[in-house]
Amino acid sequence: MVSISDVEAAIAEKGTMIDRELEKFLPRKKGDSLYEAVWYHMATGGKRIRPALALMACEAVGGDSRKAVPWAAACELLHNWLLVHDDIEDSDEVRRNQPTVWKKYGVPHAINVGDLMSQKVFQLVLDSKSSKVDDRITMQLLSLMAETAIRTAEGQAMDISMRGREPSEKEYMEMVTGKTAYYLTAPIIGGALIGGAGRKDMERIIEFGRYAGPAFQITDDVLDLTEGKGRGEIGRDIKEGKRSIMAIHCLSRCTPGEKRSILEILDKRPEDTTADDVRFVKAMFERYRSVEYSSKKAEELMAKAKHAIKPLPDDLRGLLEMFADYLISRKR
Amino acid sequence: MVSISDVEAAIAEKGTMIDRELEKFLPRKKGDSLYEAVWYHMATGGKRIRPALALMACEAVGGDSRKAVPWAAACELLHNWLLVHDDIEDSDEVRRNQPTVWKKYGVPHAINVGDLMSQKVFQLVLDSKSSKVDDRITMQLLSLMAETAIRTAEGQAMDISMRGREPSEKEYMEMVTGKTAYYLTAPIIGGALIGGAGRKDMERIIEFGRYAGPAFQITDDVLDLTEGKGRGEIGRDIKEGKRSIMAIHCLSRCTPGEKRSILEILDKRPEDTTADDVRFVKAMFERYRSVEYSSKKAEELMAKAKHAIKPLPDDLRGLLEMFADYLISRKR
Repeated sequence: MVSISDVEAAIAEKGTMIDRELEKFLPRKKGDSLYEAVWYHMATGGKRIRPALALMACEAVGGDSRKAVPWAAACELLHNWLLVHDDIEDSDEVRRNQPTVWKKYGVPHAINVGDLMSQKVFQLVLDSKSSKVDDRITMQLLSLMAETAIRTAEGQAMDISMRGREPSEKEYMEMVTGKTAYYLTAPIIGGALIGGAGRKDMERIIEFGRYAGPAFQITDDVLDLTEGKGRGEIGRDIKEGKRSIMAIHCLSRCTPGEKRSILEILDKRPEDTTADDVRFVKAMFERYRSVEYSSKKAEELMAKAKHAIKPLPDDLRGLLEMFADYLISRKR
Repeated sequence: MVSISDVEAAIAEKGTMIDRELEKFLPRKKGDSLYEAVWYHMATGGKRIRPALALMACEAVGGDSRKAVPWAAACELLHNWLLVHDDIEDSDEVRRNQPTVWKKYGVPHAINVGDLMSQKVFQLVLDSKSSKVDDRITMQLLSLMAETAIRTAEGQAMDISMRGREPSEKEYMEMVTGKTAYYLTAPIIGGALIGGAGRKDMERIIEFGRYAGPAFQITDDVLDLTEGKGRGEIGRDIKEGKRSIMAIHCLSRCTPGEKRSILEILDKRPEDTTADDVRFVKAMFERYRSVEYSSKKAEELMAKAKHAIKPLPDDLRGLLEMFADYLISRKR
C-alpha cells in the first residue's frame, strides 16, 4: 500500500533532480525581474507533489523514473505558471503567506513572467529527448501538455464569467471539471505514458480525474472557509465573489431576502468586503448546511474516482488511491 | 523580383486556408467570453502578413507551401497572443482603432484568453503532422516556437524594467534585439525549414533578423510619433513613458533642465499626461534631431540585414529583401 509518506520520501529523494532540471532552463539570475521573479514564485513553498507523482507513476508501471524527470519538471512549471496568472486574475495579494508575483513586481512583469514560464514548459517537455524518451512519446506528451492547459483555460473562463451571476450546480460542475480534471492528473498520465502504460490505462486515469478534480476543488473551497489556503485570511473566496459550490447550494435554498444580502456581499469589490460581511455569508452557509453538503459531495465524487480505477494494475491503482485520500484529507 | 503586391496576393489567395486552419482549433463560439474574445481580437484587422511570409518562404526554397499551413497559422496566433498580453502590460486601450481585449472583456479574461492562445499555438504546430511534415521537423518547429516566445519575453522584461530609468543606447539595442530578432523572422525560418532549407541558410535568416528586428522596432517608434500606430492617438509611447531610441538619444543630448522636464513627463501615469506634455517632448525630439537620428539608424540596420542575406539562394533572398523594404517604408 502506497502512503503519503512515500510521496514525501520521493519528494525528498528526487526533488533535487527536478530542481536541477528546472535550473537547466531557468537560470537563477539575481537582479533580473524575469528569472528572479520565476524563482521567487517557485520558492514560496511549492510542495513539488506533482513531479513526485509523475515519477512515481512512471515507476508504478515498471518504467525508469529518470526518463520522466523533464516531464515531471514541466508539470511543476505548468502548475506555477498558472498560479502566477491566477493570482492576477483573482487579485490575490498573498500566496503561501508571501506577496504574489504581481504584488511584488507589478502586473506587467507578472503577466510576462507567466508567459515565459508557459514556454519553458514546452522546452522542458522537448528535453525528454535528453532522457531517451522516444520522439513518438514526446509528441504525445506535448499534446497532453497543451490539452491540459487549454482545458484549464476553458474552465477558468467559465469561472470568471460566473461571478456576478447565479449559476446552477450543473454549470458549476461543468466549469470545475474543465478546470481541474486534466490539470490534476496530467503529471500521472504523462509519467505512466513514459513508463509504458497502455491506452486503456490512460483512459482510466482520465476518468479518475473527471471525478477527483472536482472533489479536490470542492475540498479546497471548503478549506478556504475553515482553515484558509495560505492566502493570509479565511473566507478569501467570499471576498472575491467566487461562485463556489457552497455559495450555489446556499443561494438555491435561502430566503429571497437572504439571497439579496449574500449576493450584495459577493458582488462587492474584495477591498470593500468587511470581516462582518464574510462572517455573515459563512453563517448562511452553515445555516443551510452548505459546507456539510459540499464535503459530502466531495467524498461521493472521490468514491467514484476510486471506482473508475478498480481495473488498473495494483501499483498504479495504489498510487492513485493514495493521491485521492491525500487530496480530500489535507488541511492546507 | 518579389514585391509587396506578391505578399498581398498571397494573403488574398491563402488567407482562407490560414483562417480555416485557425478555426480547426479555435471554434467560433458566440456568447463565449473565451473563443469569442479570441476572434474579436483576430478580426480587429490583422494583416496576416506573417503567415503569408511563412508560406512564401517555404515555396522560395522549392517546398510545397500547403505543408506550411499549420506553421503559418501558428505564427499568426503567436503574434496575436502577444498583442493581447502586451496591451494589458502597456495599458493600451485601443488597438487597430478598436477597444483592446482587456478593455472590452476585463483584465482577468484577457490574461486567460492570451494563455489559451499561447497553448493553441502548440496544437497548431503539432498539427503539422496532418500536412505531412515529418516528426523530426515538427520537433524543430516546436523548439523554434518556444525559443521565439522566450526571447520575446526576455526582451519584454528588459523593456518594462527600463521605464523609470535612463538606459544607454547599448542597453536599448540589447532589449530590442531580444524582443524582435526571432519574433520577426520565425515565420520565415519555419517556412524555409519545412521547405527543406539547410542549416546555413537558417543561420543567415537569423542574422538578418538580428538587424531587421531592431530596424523594424525603431521605425515603429518613429511612426508612433508621426502617423500613430492605430492606437487612437499620436505619441502614445510618450504617454507610456517608453524608453524609445528617440528618447534615449534626446536625453543624452539635451540640457539638464530639459532632461528633468522630459523625464517628469515620461514618468507620469499615461492618464495624467496631457497633450501639451506630448507636444513638448515631441518638440525636444525634433530640436535634437532624434527622429532623424533614429530613422537613419533604422536604415543602417536594414542595410546590414540585407548584407547578411547576400549568400542566400535568389528566391529566398528576394523575399527577405522585399520584407525589409516593406518594414521600413510602411506608413502604419
